[in-house]
Amino acid sequence: MITKSVPTSKHSQFVNITPLVGEAVSESGVQSGVATIFVSHTTAGITINENADPDVTRDLLYILERMIPWDDPDYHHNEGNTAAHMKASLMGNSTQVIIEQGQMQLGTWQGIYFCEFDGPRQRKIRIKVLGE
Amino acid sequence: MITKSVPTSKHSQFVNITPLVGEAVSESGVQSGVATIFVSHTTAGITINENADPDVTRDLLYILERMIPWDDPDYHHNEGNTAAHMKASLMGNSTQVIIEQGQMQLGTWQGIYFCEFDGPRQRKIRIKVLGE
Amino acid sequence: MITKSVPTSKHSQFVNITPLVGEAVSESGVQSGVATIFVSHTTAGITINENADPDVTRDLLYILERMIPWDDPDYHHNEGNTAAHMKASLMGNSTQVIIEQGQMQLGTWQGIYFCEFDGPRQRKIRIKVLGE
Repeated sequence: MITKSVPTSKHSQFVNITPLVGEAVSESGVQSGVATIFVSHTTAGITINENADPDVTRDLLYILERMIPWDDPDYHHNEGNTAAHMKASLMGNSTQVIIEQGQMQLGTWQGIYFCEFDGPRQRKIRIKVLGE
Repeated sequence: MITKSVPTSKHSQFVNITPLVGEAVSESGVQSGVATIFVSHTTAGITINENADPDVTRDLLYILERMIPWDDPDYHHNEGNTAAHMKASLMGNSTQVIIEQGQMQLGTWQGIYFCEFDGPRQRKIRIKVLGE
Repeated sequence: MITKSVPTSKHSQFVNITPLVGEAVSESGVQSGVATIFVSHTTAGITINENADPDVTRDLLYILERMIPWDDPDYHHNEGNTAAHMKASLMGNSTQVIIEQGQMQLGTWQGIYFCEFDGPRQRKIRIKVLGE
């Protein structure tokens, strides 16, 4: 297992971690297999989406906020960050990427995003690459 | 593949299955690898979220219910449990956990939750652990 | 890695790709392991849900559209398909299925669905099967 640090700088933020995951895949030495990228936090998630126009991830954060407002008198959790927990589960806390010839097989427009929902914080991802 | 039973006791419920998955990982004998946990139902899901304050999973159920009401005159499915199918797909029906030294590498506050959306029922999860 | 084509015929559509994934699993020759199915697009996703009553997937598309309207003056992305990107991340762009005796271990009512959110288009899925 390879661990990488992901510092975030805003309360809600999609951080492009494609290069970081690529580094971990290289370090693993696996030529053909599947990488599992795991977020070990409960108020952050991970997703794969467009890496070209930054307005896409901006819009994703906007929609998530509209669907799940930060404040709601019916939330019970007393840390006040219920919305972050919900967004984390909607995006999911792990993802997979196929590896061939030592390279991640992402589509042309795909990037891997760490999804911060209660930052800024020092975060970590864990990567495990299994070969065939 | 290891199969484990998950009895649920409410209509909507997050059941902490972390110990159950841990048991399956031990039974697999794998020391270093990735566990895939698969829900073989279509009105239940699986997610990883906070295991400390039970109000977190209570709030997650509340938000899912607010976003996807049980009744809607525009649903067509005649079994009447469309909302449960939608919640299942939003949480996802499988998840992955990295294994090192025979132990699940979860974050401090993370638990694995079976998400019942149309219970109570006798449910099952299937676990497959691949070593490196 | 095995690549399969998935032509879609509507703007929003759940296409049952269970037979296609089954073909790839057979081609892989793996008897016991885990298949990762990866969508290499950013406006399409993948999910596992009911394969019996087609009204279920019809209702899922309806709910996603109600939660994430196609038009919203607050979207910034100038291609106009922000909603498709959001739906893709909610369903997720990869899924896993356990394989035993060369067969996918799906539940009785489960089918694997390619989720088109900005079609019709020629789409592709990538499948990697790791044996134990």
